[in-house]
Amino acid sequence: MPLDRLPTVMIEPLVRAALLEDFGRAGDLTSDAIVPADLVVRARLTARRPGVIAGLDIAALAFRLLDEKVALSCEHVDGDRIAPGQIIGIVQGPARAILGAERTALNFLCRLSGIASATASIVEAVRGGKARIVCTRKTTPGLRAVEKYAVRAGGGANHRFGLDDAVLIKDNHIAIAGSVRAAIERARARIGHLVKIEVEVDTLRQLEEVLSVGADAILLDNMTLDQLRQAVIMVAGRAVTEASGRITAETAPAIAATGVDLISAGWLTHSAPALDIGLDF
Amino acid sequence: MPLDRLPTVMIEPLVRAALLEDFGRAGDLTSDAIVPADLVVRARLTARRPGVIAGLDIAALAFRLLDEKVALSCEHVDGDRIAPGQIIGIVQGPARAILGAERTALNFLCRLSGIASATASIVEAVRGGKARIVCTRKTTPGLRAVEKYAVRAGGGANHRFGLDDAVLIKDNHIAIAGSVRAAIERARARIGHLVKIEVEVDTLRQLEEVLSVGADAILLDNMTLDQLRQAVIMVAGRAVTEASGRITAETAPAIAATGVDLISAGWLTHSAPALDIGLDF
Amino acid sequence: MPLDRLPTVMIEPLVRAALLEDFGRAGDLTSDAIVPADLVVRARLTARRPGVIAGLDIAALAFRLLDEKVALSCEHVDGDRIAPGQIIGIVQGPARAILGAERTALNFLCRLSGIASATASIVEAVRGGKARIVCTRKTTPGLRAVEKYAVRAGGGANHRFGLDDAVLIKDNHIAIAGSVRAAIERARARIGHLVKIEVEVDTLRQLEEVLSVGADAILLDNMTLDQLRQAVIMVAGRAVTEASGRITAETAPAIAATGVDLISAGWLTHSAPALDIGLDF
Amino acid sequence: MPLDRLPTVMIEPLVRAALLEDFGRAGDLTSDAIVPADLVVRARLTARRPGVIAGLDIAALAFRLLDEKVALSCEHVDGDRIAPGQIIGIVQGPARAILGAERTALNFLCRLSGIASATASIVEAVRGGKARIVCTRKTTPGLRAVEKYAVRAGGGANHRFGLDDAVLIKDNHIAIAGSVRAAIERARARIGHLVKIEVEVDTLRQLEEVLSVGADAILLDNMTLDQLRQAVIMVAGRAVTEASGRITAETAPAIAATGVDLISAGWLTHSAPALDIGLDF
Amino acid sequence: MPLDRLPTVMIEPLVRAALLEDFGRAGDLTSDAIVPADLVVRARLTARRPGVIAGLDIAALAFRLLDEKVALSCEHVDGDRIAPGQIIGIVQGPARAILGAERTALNFLCRLSGIASATASIVEAVRGGKARIVCTRKTTPGLRAVEKYAVRAGGGANHRFGLDDAVLIKDNHIAIAGSVRAAIERARARIGHLVKIEVEVDTLRQLEEVLSVGADAILLDNMTLDQLRQAVIMVAGRAVTEASGRITAETAPAIAATGVDLISAGWLTHSAPALDIGLDF
Amino acid sequence: MPLDRLPTVMIEPLVRAALLEDFGRAGDLTSDAIVPADLVVRARLTARRPGVIAGLDIAALAFRLLDEKVALSCEHVDGDRIAPGQIIGIVQGPARAILGAERTALNFLCRLSGIASATASIVEAVRGGKARIVCTRKTTPGLRAVEKYAVRAGGGANHRFGLDDAVLIKDNHIAIAGSVRAAIERARARIGHLVKIEVEVDTLRQLEEVLSVGADAILLDNMTLDQLRQAVIMVAGRAVTEASGRITAETAPAIAATGVDLISAGWLTHSAPALDIGLDF
Repeated sequence: MPLDRLPTVMIEPLVRAALLEDFGRAGDLTSDAIVPADLVVRARLTARRPGVIAGLDIAALAFRLLDEKVALSCEHVDGDRIAPGQIIGIVQGPARAILGAERTALNFLCRLSGIASATASIVEAVRGGKARIVCTRKTTPGLRAVEKYAVRAGGGANHRFGLDDAVLIKDNHIAIAGSVRAAIERARARIGHLVKIEVEVDTLRQLEEVLSVGADAILLDNMTLDQLRQAVIMVAGRAVTEASGRITAETAPAIAATGVDLISAGWLTHSAPALDIGLDF
Repeated sequence: MPLDRLPTVMIEPLVRAALLEDFGRAGDLTSDAIVPADLVVRARLTARRPGVIAGLDIAALAFRLLDEKVALSCEHVDGDRIAPGQIIGIVQGPARAILGAERTALNFLCRLSGIASATASIVEAVRGGKARIVCTRKTTPGLRAVEKYAVRAGGGANHRFGLDDAVLIKDNHIAIAGSVRAAIERARARIGHLVKIEVEVDTLRQLEEVLSVGADAILLDNMTLDQLRQAVIMVAGRAVTEASGRITAETAPAIAATGVDLISAGWLTHSAPALDIGLDF
Repeated sequence: MPLDRLPTVMIEPLVRAALLEDFGRAGDLTSDAIVPADLVVRARLTARRPGVIAGLDIAALAFRLLDEKVALSCEHVDGDRIAPGQIIGIVQGPARAILGAERTALNFLCRLSGIASATASIVEAVRGGKARIVCTRKTTPGLRAVEKYAVRAGGGANHRFGLDDAVLIKDNHIAIAGSVRAAIERARARIGHLVKIEVEVDTLRQLEEVLSVGADAILLDNMTLDQLRQAVIMVAGRAVTEASGRITAETAPAIAATGVDLISAGWLTHSAPALDIGLDF
Repeated sequence: MPLDRLPTVMIEPLVRAALLEDFGRAGDLTSDAIVPADLVVRARLTARRPGVIAGLDIAALAFRLLDEKVALSCEHVDGDRIAPGQIIGIVQGPARAILGAERTALNFLCRLSGIASATASIVEAVRGGKARIVCTRKTTPGLRAVEKYAVRAGGGANHRFGLDDAVLIKDNHIAIAGSVRAAIERARARIGHLVKIEVEVDTLRQLEEVLSVGADAILLDNMTLDQLRQAVIMVAGRAVTEASGRITAETAPAIAATGVDLISAGWLTHSAPALDIGLDF
Repeated sequence: MPLDRLPTVMIEPLVRAALLEDFGRAGDLTSDAIVPADLVVRARLTARRPGVIAGLDIAALAFRLLDEKVALSCEHVDGDRIAPGQIIGIVQGPARAILGAERTALNFLCRLSGIASATASIVEAVRGGKARIVCTRKTTPGLRAVEKYAVRAGGGANHRFGLDDAVLIKDNHIAIAGSVRAAIERARARIGHLVKIEVEVDTLRQLEEVLSVGADAILLDNMTLDQLRQAVIMVAGRAVTEASGRITAETAPAIAATGVDLISAGWLTHSAPALDIGLDF
Repeated sequence: MPLDRLPTVMIEPLVRAALLEDFGRAGDLTSDAIVPADLVVRARLTARRPGVIAGLDIAALAFRLLDEKVALSCEHVDGDRIAPGQIIGIVQGPARAILGAERTALNFLCRLSGIASATASIVEAVRGGKARIVCTRKTTPGLRAVEKYAVRAGGGANHRFGLDDAVLIKDNHIAIAGSVRAAIERARARIGHLVKIEVEVDTLRQLEEVLSVGADAILLDNMTLDQLRQAVIMVAGRAVTEASGRITAETAPAIAATGVDLISAGWLTHSAPALDIGLDF
């Protein structure tokens, strides 16, 4: 399943803002002072750790926006698994622009590759089963579109992109509505025909109540493996089942084995360590 | 040493953009459908893990920008160490606005508190010595000012904020200049009188060369403890010494014991896991 | 079913931009020249035609952003049906600010009320049946969120808000995929678990093919009443049915009587005439 | 009289914002899932109704900004009258980009062509006479520059572009000033030498008063044909005369025949139905 | 003739941008380090040179946007003539915010007061005559609205605000059109009824040609006093006459004595020295 | 010492905003009416006064952003000294775009060249000595980066770019801290290792106090030549010395002769007259 590129129009504002954040009001003092304006160089983008790459278009755009004479030619595409020391791409062009955009390009690339790698580690842990790994809305403010893209690059799928593309009924909503049934019915009465409803439950009793009303998906939050197994049996295909809570590459296989459709992990976007990628001249 | 607040004018654009990113074009479908518009509630902001808090002003602004009737009254201030279960603050106001801004507020608060907590863990590991913990430019695109703030909240200090507020001569600059001496001299000839120069060295031989020319600070990159000790002796107070490479709470004490002035760690901003903070009604 | 307000954070950028567009570089030449700065007046917002009102919060914000001393106190709320001559609200404050923001406030209010009124005219035409009236993505560039809101104010429901919140497979997609089945299967394989799929069909044969593969909703485009009736029978509740093409208050009742769930009309947002509302001192 | 293009720098921000509004955070789910990334197609832009075209540069920019490999080659230029079924232009390039930008391009093109067509219908109704058709400030918030351009494309002329490029004294201003004379005199005393003054009058008595003070233009609001005829005689070329109120292609010829210089109609921009233009593969 | 305030909505974006430009990514290092967060002070805004003040609302907004607890209470209003040492206003509030916004507030205030003062110096030089002093489009990029406002504060009037609010036919346009007549006629055929035409001439022969065709205003560029006198006689009130070129307080009275209506000077906005205003604690 | 270009990404937002400010909502009325759309011309950029040029990249970008077919080929580079009548560059392309962008291009070019020329006049006055000429933060709001660049083009050096790239302790800070020593110590305790501290002193007694604590630079404000000489002796190379107050080309040589390292002048950026540069067809 090939990965779809994000159109430039979606990433350009982020990259421009990031370059300006790093250049401030005086620009790259070090390179301007030391590097001749006409020096052209070639540098290798190399992974220092194994992982899955994401963000090459963004990195390329960072270099190109600083100086259109810089080109990044990639040996890999987003979603590729990279071994340490492996060359990801070659940047060629004026040395000043390469040094000036280096940190911006790498800040995007390392973060997004970190997310892709974290996602891939869990995706691989459950390979062979039907469970898909999904992210949450716990993303970095301003970077949701690209972080969700990185999850896809790692082989994961995306949960909601915002408060407005699906209904997710949580404990507080249920408490306010008075019951699971009331919450679901209020939602159903209001939403558009292309909006799905997911309900979060903590107990099998709550699950039962959801099933009696119906929902498109059910988030089984912090359940034991036993509870998950039983939940899957109770749901019996009438809704998508999603398990969440303490998901790691170690815990995921057992959770996947319970038969849930989705395993969601907030840390993929809020806490995945950056992948160490460097630029070597 | 009290922590200085970031003025609202600096954080408001970030918070507005984050709210809009989450609200998209249709707003909070779930709360709009389920929560009465006039319901006023009270919720507790609680840490689920121990850590150091950062970002309370930002969280408060997220709630207030969504609805000025929401108020966050804090029992703590940024920089405070929090135990699991401890209440950080109380949010009070219209339930819809609290639910609508919850994720935006927490995405900032958890990330920044994660950075503050990671910083504090190393700061505490070296407590008693003179070494200060500093961050790098490996920050999230768009969030540098607030992530650097979070490092301060954790007791750390800040390195450069951008390419334009100090000179940092790295291996590539030295290679292009031809020698350490040439690089430093070119920089000195060009920069303003309030700009400092730091030079990155990998070997003691390079260090010697830097010392013969002079620099404000010297980044001792990936050196062994022995090398660091020797470097500190060689520098003899003529420059600020900064150690970097593989810094953790475990390795930091020994590095601090070598006598270096600063210990810098990129992962504080690019890979610190978010602190788990929740909002409970 | 009460109408949910759009949060200020979503409408403020639109209103600021609109005020600046009208004020240009020199401001309100006429009022500045003629109206004393300290004159306070009272003006009535009055409908000149019958219709349904939408956009009062936006109008109020336009006045308030120009001068916080201007207040709009409304006798009605968005979604109310208004008779000609009926007073919608009273604006009170400095005359200059009222005159300066008048056109901006009315441009929003008349357009959105026009959309609400057009929607309501069809909603009323099909009242009593189950069919809901929905809008499309044929909205004014930049105003989608508020125009979709106006549709809700008129009693309608919203279709997709963008290319990214649901799948809508049209003839070109089917042609490219090679068949309805291939198109749906490709979509299903790629999308998230909270994304629904709607398929547009022109013929009952195509409908049959969709039903054999399954879809959440089916857009019956430009079908005759007979075809629609038969389509509803064929679908038999397995998908939401949506009729589109030449929808007016005259044609809608017969279409609704075919049993379709939804009737969609692009003209509600792209061609509804503005409602004539005036501000009288 | 050829039509002048709007420079790209003026339309690009509108087009970028519109594309982002439609792409949201996840992009074009349908085309990404179904359409191969490397598929290149050719599509025809065709009018489905007769009318006058406006907005081709904007449509072309929408395609190009999404993917610079998409080209729109036009068989017509803005201002051309188009028959139903007539091909306006050919779009060629990657299918995904064409499908992704289609709605954005058409939303601009159909709206602007609707305005141009409405304008042209009245322009043609009064052809042969001296009266020119003009628009007002009743434009869509954010789109004033392009909607005024569309009026020109339809053969009309533009009234004020904002509150700041001419003085227009209305009833409220006169009431505040105390008299027509006082209002005009206050304005004259304050404005720059390149600013014209227009005064709105409802009665011939008011007209007389304006004429005794002098003005560059006089807006004869909602007058009968008899009143208009008499007004034109009274003005006797000393000011530009503008008739407004209930202007349609049916009423315009008689109004034009009264001898007024201008006929203004707010509905050209606030209520003209979009022209139905489609993109066929 | 009282001076009209610019609405906050027009100046706020400028002030926010200026504060952010000065605060950069780390804020006010000096005050944060030295000034207690809760220290409240009082400072006097004092002119160090005689002049005319302009920009007090902008200065007040700079302080208020940084901290809403800062208030600027003014003893003067824009347009007032100030003697050296005279107190213009009192700023009261948190010391940090006053020090942090000081430079931003003063950069606006000193520049705009410089423009107002330069304008006033010429206005006073020609006092008693009918000639008005006007500015040009030679303004600082981004500040046109506020610089034109400063000219008004100094007692001057405004020329065009942009390329789009009047026609100004210069030598290049005439050369391209082939003749003065052709240029004026082309303009007249295209422009709206509220747009005036001014023509620039260098010689009396050109002036004659303009008069034979007619224009609203005539710019007499770099003419001698004799030529100006003769030009005024030739025009005989049929157009507004504007003299330009080398205008100073010394040359202006004689130019005014020639009978021209307007004297325009680009240097009022592009080269007026800032007025020295300080903030003293 | 060659001058470093500002990257396009830093200047493009300024140039786009300036073009839009001049084009307003209706564009270049005059050229659109008079100049044929396909007319291509050639114009010379010529200095009318002697000076030093700065801003050629910005001017070129203004033309190119309006129409990519316009090219500015320069005979000079920023920093070059130009004699009156000397051709700086040739602009070639569509006449409309050249006329449309002319004022925007010149407004930047004349202002920045004015700053460069003013700087150069003082730089030349002190040529041969070691004193460098530096600017301040008294820049035009929004233009700090380009105005500081213009100072460099004139041979000057830059002082702080904002409140956040160095500490500058002034009289108010000292008063608040209680003493020079307290102020410096508080600053030192808070700032990063790459941040320098400068202290402003009015008297030699204050200077003594600063020297006893230590500082990177000392601003000797408004001192007599005798005081400056003595100050330089007292400092004895332990800090950078900066003289400020009433700096002109006339006073600078004597000040430079006192041995100070830097001479700073706020007027270079806030009051330097624009350099008169014209565009001739």
